[in-house]
Amino acid sequence: MTVAVVGGGQLGLMLGLAGARLGLRFRFLDPAADAPAARAGELLVGAYDDAELLRRLCDGADAVTFEFENLPAGAAPPQLLPPAGALAVAQDRLHEKELFRRLGIGTAPYAAVDTRAELDDAVAEIGLPAVLKTRRFGYDGKGQAVLRAAAAVDAAWDELGGVPLLLEGLVPFERELSVLAVRGRDGATAFWPLTENVHRAGILRQSVAPAAPELQGEAEELAAAVLAELEYVGVLAVELFQRDGRLLANELAPRVHNSGHWTIDGAATSQFENHLRAILGLPLGSTAAVAPSAMVNLVGEVPPLRRLLEVEGARVHVYGKAPRPGRKVGHVTLVEPDAERLRRLLELAGEPTAGAATIVA
Amino acid sequence: MTVAVVGGGQLGLMLGLAGARLGLRFRFLDPAADAPAARAGELLVGAYDDAELLRRLCDGADAVTFEFENLPAGAAPPQLLPPAGALAVAQDRLHEKELFRRLGIGTAPYAAVDTRAELDDAVAEIGLPAVLKTRRFGYDGKGQAVLRAAAAVDAAWDELGGVPLLLEGLVPFERELSVLAVRGRDGATAFWPLTENVHRAGILRQSVAPAAPELQGEAEELAAAVLAELEYVGVLAVELFQRDGRLLANELAPRVHNSGHWTIDGAATSQFENHLRAILGLPLGSTAAVAPSAMVNLVGEVPPLRRLLEVEGARVHVYGKAPRPGRKVGHVTLVEPDAERLRRLLELAGEPTAGAATIVA
Repeated sequence: MTVAVVGGGQLGLMLGLAGARLGLRFRFLDPAADAPAARAGELLVGAYDDAELLRRLCDGADAVTFEFENLPAGAAPPQLLPPAGALAVAQDRLHEKELFRRLGIGTAPYAAVDTRAELDDAVAEIGLPAVLKTRRFGYDGKGQAVLRAAAAVDAAWDELGGVPLLLEGLVPFERELSVLAVRGRDGATAFWPLTENVHRAGILRQSVAPAAPELQGEAEELAAAVLAELEYVGVLAVELFQRDGRLLANELAPRVHNSGHWTIDGAATSQFENHLRAILGLPLGSTAAVAPSAMVNLVGEVPPLRRLLEVEGARVHVYGKAPRPGRKVGHVTLVEPDAERLRRLLELAGEPTAGAATIVA
Repeated sequence: MTVAVVGGGQLGLMLGLAGARLGLRFRFLDPAADAPAARAGELLVGAYDDAELLRRLCDGADAVTFEFENLPAGAAPPQLLPPAGALAVAQDRLHEKELFRRLGIGTAPYAAVDTRAELDDAVAEIGLPAVLKTRRFGYDGKGQAVLRAAAAVDAAWDELGGVPLLLEGLVPFERELSVLAVRGRDGATAFWPLTENVHRAGILRQSVAPAAPELQGEAEELAAAVLAELEYVGVLAVELFQRDGRLLANELAPRVHNSGHWTIDGAATSQFENHLRAILGLPLGSTAAVAPSAMVNLVGEVPPLRRLLEVEGARVHVYGKAPRPGRKVGHVTLVEPDAERLRRLLELAGEPTAGAATIVA
């Protein structure tokens, strides 16, 4: 069977490696000739909305999916899974928030902002601190400005104004969590254990799972509502805040997600394999954790491989991307981590180590 | 880093998939344009002893290894690991047996047979039943004839005579085991837990590990002696018989081995990753089993993927090879298997299920 994937980044690479085990073949579309996924299948090089390349990409494929979330919605092939409707919702932070609200899922307070006057109204309504975000095309903290005082409003508008925006109240939260869910073509669903995430400068740095078992039921309930509403097929990630012991939804990712990378080494079935099973109409695999896991992202550049492999039990993943500040170039998972090995790994990854022990108790 | 591999079968594919996680790139040489490893790297198509292709294969590679054991020894590139000397020993059943004897490792009784007269002498010395084997180029039961009665000697000679042969006594044994070992460029060694193997018609059908913990020390000792003697670098498999509670060595495989496939899903570090770490001079990873595992080979053809994935916990590996009787086309590993799931899997694989419970107690 052949799977066509729009996008050829590390998520495509890991989909391809998970599928290669199952004997699947892959075709990717990416503008970069050195896209990481080229190591796991055929790579078509060109724009995501090149109609002829999209036709070639999908030709004879048993399933068509995407790993690049900013695929122009108008270019979505008809057989796309997750469905184009889910992608369209996730591409617009306002639609995302409205979906959560419609389903009775708590969020931070928010308001749409299209003009400078609306920004003032929104600030008055929501209060500060707040975050001004572009509704579209944001990732890894890009397209965002934090407003801590009224004096910052002008600069934020100058930086981001002119495109549809959203102002979100910056709610104090205890921690960031995410729930990874999968829904098959037959409507069957499964949920991995909640993951706790640590971001720095808008970029995910660490995940630990299973986290917050007392909130697992609430997380599965809200994810199930989203899956059903979007007639979803594939893996979905919902980023969450834990506040006063309850969950607030932050945003959706209609795809395999960085906070689920621990599932490759730490779960009975990885998010990548289950995504493929789902879109191909195959039975879903168990989402149980085989052991507690901690994942550390490698951002900017990959430390020497030897040093990483010296950390006992380190499961190293390198994406083959050129180094660049702020770029995710690999990750390392520790199954059954202890604080000392996690500390060494964070040190190698250039992360602050002070908090390491707090999430791996 | 780039790894060059002579051979592009499923062992090459699995090396490539293990290495892709680490960011390694692969180049394979195989006579078949549809070799499975083509999914995991660049494939050069041609003969194993094509000097120009071997030169291209090795050009700029950080390590050169093989997955095809019958590489003509004269064609071995100088930088080959495991070293050409180890390959040469493993290519000749007589040299293999002599190595074991020299190291004080027990074997079945054996005698070299080059002529019909020597065959009669060997039968007289060793007794029947015995197995007549070609010294070179045997695999999966090919190049062998079992002699149960004197009347069978003529036919066996007619079938196999004319090339150097070995007659081995067919010793009654309790079970077949194998030990997988790895040695780094720095001489560090590690050993996976013993694996119990079931062959049928000369082809490996099932493995279960860990097996026979009471023999682990003896197995590691004999494997360590072989590794040291051959100045070995990489993964080595030694096939063993358990007889009267002791180990007899049967044969060597100077490479990753089918009886170690369970390590992909069931060990902290797979045989494939540790082979790569070894030949690249990187630190070895833990060889501990994460849980008991059972592996079932898919021989001849792959059952419908849906049926395999319906077996809870099945970790399915499909090599992308055309179906052919007796051909290994995939394998499935159950981590923490129970007798019922193993029985279903054996049924799907077309194996007798009667003995399933006996090795998964």
